[in-house]
Formats: sequence, C-alpha cells, structure tokens
Amino acid sequence: MSSKVSPSRPLRRESVESWHLETDVLIVGLGAAGASAAITARDAGAEVVVVEAASAGGGTTALAGGQIYFGGGTPTQKACGIEDRLEDMFQYLMLASGPSADEARVREYVDNNLAHFDWLVEQGLEFKPEYVKAKLNNTHGDEGLIYSGNETCYPYDEQARPAPRGHKGKAKGEGGGALLMDTLIASAERKGAWVLYEARALTSIVDEQGRVVGLVVRIDGEERCIHARGGVVLCAGGFIMNREMLAQHAPRLLLSNFPLGNPNDTGMGIRIGQGAGGCAINMHEGFVSLPFYPPSCMVEGILVNGKGQRVVAEDVYHGRLGEEMFAAPDEKFYMVIDSRNFEAMEKPPLGGYSVAAVGETIEELEAELALPPGMLAHTLAFFNEHAAAGQDPLFHKRPPYLKPLDQPPYAAFDFSMGGGAWFPAFTFGGLDTSLDGEVLNAEGEAIAGLFAAGRTTCGLPRWGAGYASGMSIGDATYFGRKAGAAAAGC
Amino acid sequence: MSSKVSPSRPLRRESVESWHLETDVLIVGLGAAGASAAITARDAGAEVVVVEAASAGGGTTALAGGQIYFGGGTPTQKACGIEDRLEDMFQYLMLASGPSADEARVREYVDNNLAHFDWLVEQGLEFKPEYVKAKLNNTHGDEGLIYSGNETCYPYDEQARPAPRGHKGKAKGEGGGALLMDTLIASAERKGAWVLYEARALTSIVDEQGRVVGLVVRIDGEERCIHARGGVVLCAGGFIMNREMLAQHAPRLLLSNFPLGNPNDTGMGIRIGQGAGGCAINMHEGFVSLPFYPPSCMVEGILVNGKGQRVVAEDVYHGRLGEEMFAAPDEKFYMVIDSRNFEAMEKPPLGGYSVAAVGETIEELEAELALPPGMLAHTLAFFNEHAAAGQDPLFHKRPPYLKPLDQPPYAAFDFSMGGGAWFPAFTFGGLDTSLDGEVLNAEGEAIAGLFAAGRTTCGLPRWGAGYASGMSIGDATYFGRKAGAAAAGC
Repeated sequence: MSSKVSPSRPLRRESVESWHLETDVLIVGLGAAGASAAITARDAGAEVVVVEAASAGGGTTALAGGQIYFGGGTPTQKACGIEDRLEDMFQYLMLASGPSADEARVREYVDNNLAHFDWLVEQGLEFKPEYVKAKLNNTHGDEGLIYSGNETCYPYDEQARPAPRGHKGKAKGEGGGALLMDTLIASAERKGAWVLYEARALTSIVDEQGRVVGLVVRIDGEERCIHARGGVVLCAGGFIMNREMLAQHAPRLLLSNFPLGNPNDTGMGIRIGQGAGGCAINMHEGFVSLPFYPPSCMVEGILVNGKGQRVVAEDVYHGRLGEEMFAAPDEKFYMVIDSRNFEAMEKPPLGGYSVAAVGETIEELEAELALPPGMLAHTLAFFNEHAAAGQDPLFHKRPPYLKPLDQPPYAAFDFSMGGGAWFPAFTFGGLDTSLDGEVLNAEGEAIAGLFAAGRTTCGLPRWGAGYASGMSIGDATYFGRKAGAAAAGC
Repeated sequence: MSSKVSPSRPLRRESVESWHLETDVLIVGLGAAGASAAITARDAGAEVVVVEAASAGGGTTALAGGQIYFGGGTPTQKACGIEDRLEDMFQYLMLASGPSADEARVREYVDNNLAHFDWLVEQGLEFKPEYVKAKLNNTHGDEGLIYSGNETCYPYDEQARPAPRGHKGKAKGEGGGALLMDTLIASAERKGAWVLYEARALTSIVDEQGRVVGLVVRIDGEERCIHARGGVVLCAGGFIMNREMLAQHAPRLLLSNFPLGNPNDTGMGIRIGQGAGGCAINMHEGFVSLPFYPPSCMVEGILVNGKGQRVVAEDVYHGRLGEEMFAAPDEKFYMVIDSRNFEAMEKPPLGGYSVAAVGETIEELEAELALPPGMLAHTLAFFNEHAAAGQDPLFHKRPPYLKPLDQPPYAAFDFSMGGGAWFPAFTFGGLDTSLDGEVLNAEGEAIAGLFAAGRTTCGLPRWGAGYASGMSIGDATYFGRKAGAAAAGC
C-alpha cells in the first residue's frame, strides 16, 4: 500500500490486497454519535466494529457538561411541574437556527425527542427531576433541568413560549458528559460492539461505482484495510483543533483562546468524507462564547463597548453575548456593575475575566476606562431611567435581571478579547447528510455506503448566535442512532 | 454515457467511448479569468479550447464597472502625480484581507501588479491618466483613477499610506468591465483560442490516478467528451445565483436583493472541482454592500441604528458600511443629514434608498423615526461637539466628510434591509488553489491536470469587511494568466 495515504484520495478497492477485518458496520469514533450508532446497529443485528483514535472512548462529549436539549413534556419537565409543548420547542429551535435553519431536521428531532429521551434512559441514563431556576451554565449538583439557551430572552420569548429544556444526567456539576459517555459505552459493549482503540482511520476504500466499502485504518503502526459490508459511519468529531482547517473555513474561530474539544477533533472525519465525494457545508459557523455567568448577578450589569454604547441584552445566553466579541475582536468590551454586586469581584467567576476599573462615580469609571467622555454616563442614565420603570427600550432585557445600576461605586470587568477572559469555541460545520445520516455530495446525492453523525456533520446546531447548550449532544446521540440504523440496513 | 451526469461524480476515463475534441488546454468560461488564461496559454504555444455556457463571452466582469486594483506606482498614478509604494499597497491589501488573509497570494499579486498592468495595456486596454478625487463607486466619465476602497479611512490610513488604486479602462461610467472584456476576448481570438459558445461543462473526466484529463460538455444538447492533454482550467465564476449553495455555505448572502453576477454564476466550476477532489474554502465570505454614494454629500451624514446609536465611520467604502446591515438584518438603520445636503433628496441616489422622515428638529426626527427618545439627540450632540473640533472619538471619521450636522431641518434615509435600498452581493469562496492555479484537495495536494482562477477560486478578495473595488478583476486576470500558463505546461 502507498505510504502516502491521504483522506483526500480514497483507496480503490481493487488495490486492497487483503482485508484485515470484515464487519457489517464500521464506525469511526466512540464519542456520543459513534456510541449511539454502535448501539443501534447492534440492536439491528449487525456486526459492529468501532475504530477510536484515542486510547479510551468518550470523545468531546465526555469533556462536556452533558446538557441534552429535550422538551415538549419530558418526564423530567413534568415531574418539575414545567409545562412545555413540542410546537414551542420547534419554534424555538427554528429561531435558534437562524439563517442556516434546516426545518426538516429540526422537525425530525423535535418529533422524536421524547422517544429519544426514553432511549437514553433505556441505556441506563438517569435524570434527577429537579429544576434549578438560576442563570447557570450547568447545575452545580446533580439536578436535571435548567434553562440552557435564550428561551426567556427577547425576541424568543415573544415567539415561542419558554420552558427549560437543558437536561443533564444525574451527575454533579460538569460531570454530565462523562456520565453519559460511560453509560453509552457500557451499553455498546454489553450489546457486543467491538472497539479497537488507538486505531486511526486514514481514508476510505471505494469500489468502481464510488461506493464506500471500507476504511484504511492505522493499527499498531500498520495501515490495515477493514471491510464494511453495510456501511462506514463517520463520527470523528469536529475540527476545532485543526488550525489550518479553521483558517480555510472558519477564520473567526481562530480567535478563541479555549478550543472546546479533544485532541482528535482535527476534522479527519470530514476530510475522509470529502475525499469520498461528500460535501462539507456551513463550515464557517460554530459555537463561540464568553461564559460570564455564574454568578447570576453579573447578568444585572450593562455590557458596553469601547465607545460606551450598550451592545446586547445582558440576560442572553453566554454564546449570544460572546458573538458580539467575536464579531469585533479589536473592540473593547466592559461589563459594568454597581456596588450591590461587588461580591462578583471576590469570587473568581467562570469566564476568567478581570476587573478593569473601579470608580466612585460613573464619570470616574468612564475616565479610568478611557472611554469617550460622556458616553458611558449617558448610556447608564438612559438605562437606569428605563430600568426603574421595568423597561429596556434598546435591547429588551427582561426582569428579573433588569435593575437600575444606581448604587455607586461602580466596577467594570474586561470582556474584551485579549483581556484575560476565556473565549471557548467549537465548530458546527461538517458533512451534509440526509436525515438518515447518509453523506451527500454537492448535488445532494447520497454516497453509497457512507454515513456520518455528530460534529463530523452539519447537524442540528448551525448558528452560533442562536445556540443553546444541549443541542450538540441531542443531535449527536439522536442522529448517531439514525446513521447506525441506516448503515445496518434498517 | 449515463444520462445522469453529475459534477460530483467524475466520469472515469475508461468509460469514454470517443473524444469529441482534443486540445492542450481546456478552459471553462470566457470571463476575465478564462480570457486571461486563454491568452496566456496561446502565448505559450498551447492549443486552447474555451467552453462558454452563454451565447457570448464576458461573464460577470462585462457587467461590472471595471475597476482593477493596481498600485505602487502605475503609469496612471505617475501621470496623475500620485505617489504610491508597493509596500503600502501590500500593507493595505493585507489589512483588507482580514482574518482570511493569504499573505503569499497578496505578495504575489502586489509584486507582479505593475507588470500585469503593462500586460493589460499590451492586450489593448487603455487607461486615461486622470484622477477623480470625489467619493465615487466609479468615475462618471472615462477617467482612469479613483479611491476604490477604505484606504483613507481609520484605521487603514494609519497603517498604510493611502493612494488611489482603482484603475478603470478608458470607458465611460460603468462601461469599464465591458471594455475590458471586449479587449481580452479580441486578444484571445486574435491569438487563436477557439471558443465554443452555448457549451456547458458538466463534469470532469479522470484517469486511474485521479488526474483530470478532460470534461464532459453539453454541446447542441449532446454530452460530449473533450480531452485536455495539458490541463483543464475552471473559470466559471462564483455561486451568487445558486440559492441552494448560498443556503449551504453563505446563508447571509441570501439577504442580498441584488445579486451581482451573470445567470451562469451557479457555482458549476466549484462543484466540478469538488467532484474531482478539490477543496472549496472560505465559502461563507462575500462582497456585500449598500452603495450609498454618490452623492458624496451623503457621506457627511451620521448612520444610526434603531437604537439611535452610531455604528460606523460614515466615510468608509460602501462595502464596509453594508457589512453592518448584513450583520444585523432585523435592525433599523438610518442615515441622518441636515439641510445643507437636502439636495440628496432631489437626486435619486445610486443605492435606491428612500427618505424615512424629515424633522424641523432632531427631536422631531427622532419621534418620526420612533427611536427611543433621547438617544438620537444625544448621539447628534456628541457627534457635533467633536466634529466641530475636527474629531470623531467614536469611529474616527476623517475630514473632509467630518462636519457638524447643525443646520436643521434634518432628514433620515432608510438604510435598513427591506427598506427599499439595494444590497448587492457576490461570493468570495471557491476552490483552494496554489499560486500557480493548481486546484488543491483538502490536504493541500495539487490535483493533476486541474487548474482554476477567478471567482471559481478563493483568490485575492477574501473578506467582505475589507474589500476594495478592483480586487476581483485584478485577481481574476492575474491569476487567470497564471492558471493558463500552468495548464500549458509552463
């Protein structure tokens, strides 16, 4: 075999000298999508081999907080006394998908999400039916339900009745992703999926008709050919760790100083899929964030730019707020609070931001921050006047976080890029797929034998400005199942 | 031959029954890139066939104003007494390329742009050495030189010494592109390039090693195979006319109500290239604009959003200003002028915008526009106070357009999307190529036999927020020559 195997150049089947292994379904990656695909393919009676580049499974999901976006009346919502309707969840996810919305995909996910919740429970995942109302990225304990997006914010709340839909398995704090992956991997192993660790997929193997019939995989330092009679399923994550791909496709994500991913999120699944004729779409989009809460009290501040202008409703999801900074990386941004919330200066908050200035008066703060004289004072006066009346005519920030900042002294946190704060990011772009997980070429035609799911695809999450936590894992597990079933011939 | 020819599925050479034609260099598209490639390949002694889908050549360039970005001391600049240095042009183009900058490509273009100017003159293009200083999209007469970008604006002017670099061939008004194409096509024909009109390229033909050896082309309703011994050069334009591709790759460009292109800008060159293994990059980016000048006097206004906040230095290039609207399509935007420039209400300006309100005072205007009370008045007062001192602390708008708006009554033009103004757009994304025009796969490897130039590639223009008129045609003609030479084996 050529020593220059490249994902961009599939191996022709006639060049394969011998098969190292043969199976029905060959899955690349044992993260949320791959594990879900493996379980479903095994349930369908298929032989399943998973090749995982790392020495353990879990992927990026195992590193994540583990939110899963469910709604429309889940057992957890009902037990917490939360009313929700599938139609409101659908409306919300459509708004959250912005200009890149894929209506059929949103509909598919919403219509099947309650059954998918049950499926996860069948695999062994437990949800503690307790709702935490505070503005959080995740629950601190093992409670199962929070608001994980912009549902209560303008203009979403006017167009889709809000409900908390961020569900986490019963693990403390950020341990939800690890618990989910332990659960899924244990289920996949119980059902007889065979996992090869430290096995790196290198390129596809295609027959004369262009059908994908297997993969070249590096195992123990050797390039081996594995035959997939039914199909290959690419679940190898996104490309946030591949700076060259970011520069080519999503340059603004290079601004992130905190890539959210595992070291194998190098886009290899996408590149293998492209090599076999797949079309990668929406490659510029991603999740970008400034995780500025908790503490919840930070949300009571006003976010101003270096011109002293407010720029966003401060009660939005942290991803929506982070978008503002990513869109203007050379701009200064400050979160201004008054003395009522000075406790925020004592407890280091999640986002790692620092105090830029403190002032006895707003004029003093303005001077300390070197803002154009008069701008911040006017911005604050205008905000306070209306906030006292429960109004925010500029950005429609909502109670309970809408309060006049009228208790000097004032402080400002530096939210600028390069100012010390964390700016996490991961990619949304990937292979175009049918709702069954078939990889599509640029003409929308399915490539025989090739399937994909998770962040190797462009799935449910498509727009950073509208993202809600839980959309990625919901997408990866649900559409992972679909791809596994399709590869198994169901 | 299969009746379902698809650009995503190259034809295998072994399936070709007979060649309809054989040539050295086969070029798709007779726009600026294709014509330049044809001339250069003929000069190198190669047989050249061009297949053009339309019934005449010219492509989108023939519809354009015809600006070409040249600098560093062109004959036109020198004759007009303009000093410029290659290094300033390089610095400027790097800034103008933003996060997607390709330094080697900018360097290549700048270092060779004076020789490229001479090459265009050799083909028969004439430049009238007259500089027009007004803020224009193009000269009204046949004068050859204007500022065509953000060179004099903050922060560019501080980092690269400004010079006008927008060159137009000696044609009146918007006729520069047509003149350029007439000139290039006449030269190509004189040199013996053979053009097949109404001939539509459908997919590539590849041999066992993946080398591109020709194209399937629809001619007189029949699918014909054309053999290219040296190489195929894809110069088929961008994809602004393909709404499905825009949705997949550049959804914000769907907001444009004025696609700048010809009907064949459907991305066919990109899709044929992808089908042969090429990687399309930077697909989300494009030129977007609100052509709000001329009249120049409009630049003296202040642009505010629906919150009454200023958002940009109003003396920027129209593309930079248009970016603000494309980034916030649901936001309102108004250009506020005072009575000194009311003449702008009489002469219908280029951008097609309408008068949203007139007010005897700024407060009356604010009320007419239903802006949050007090915001616009403060914005204007702050602007006027500093403008009177020649300062714009917020956005650094420069003289000569920085003047207090202190002569009521006031008027506001509606610059919002959906408010009647034109929002032109075209695409920047396309095939990744080497500086010689070789099409590259996702691993950066050249695909043998396949070349591309112009908007089928991701070339010199890569960032809408920094674009200057003339970058596209400069890129298409220069790198078209490179691709033609490479395909001819030079």
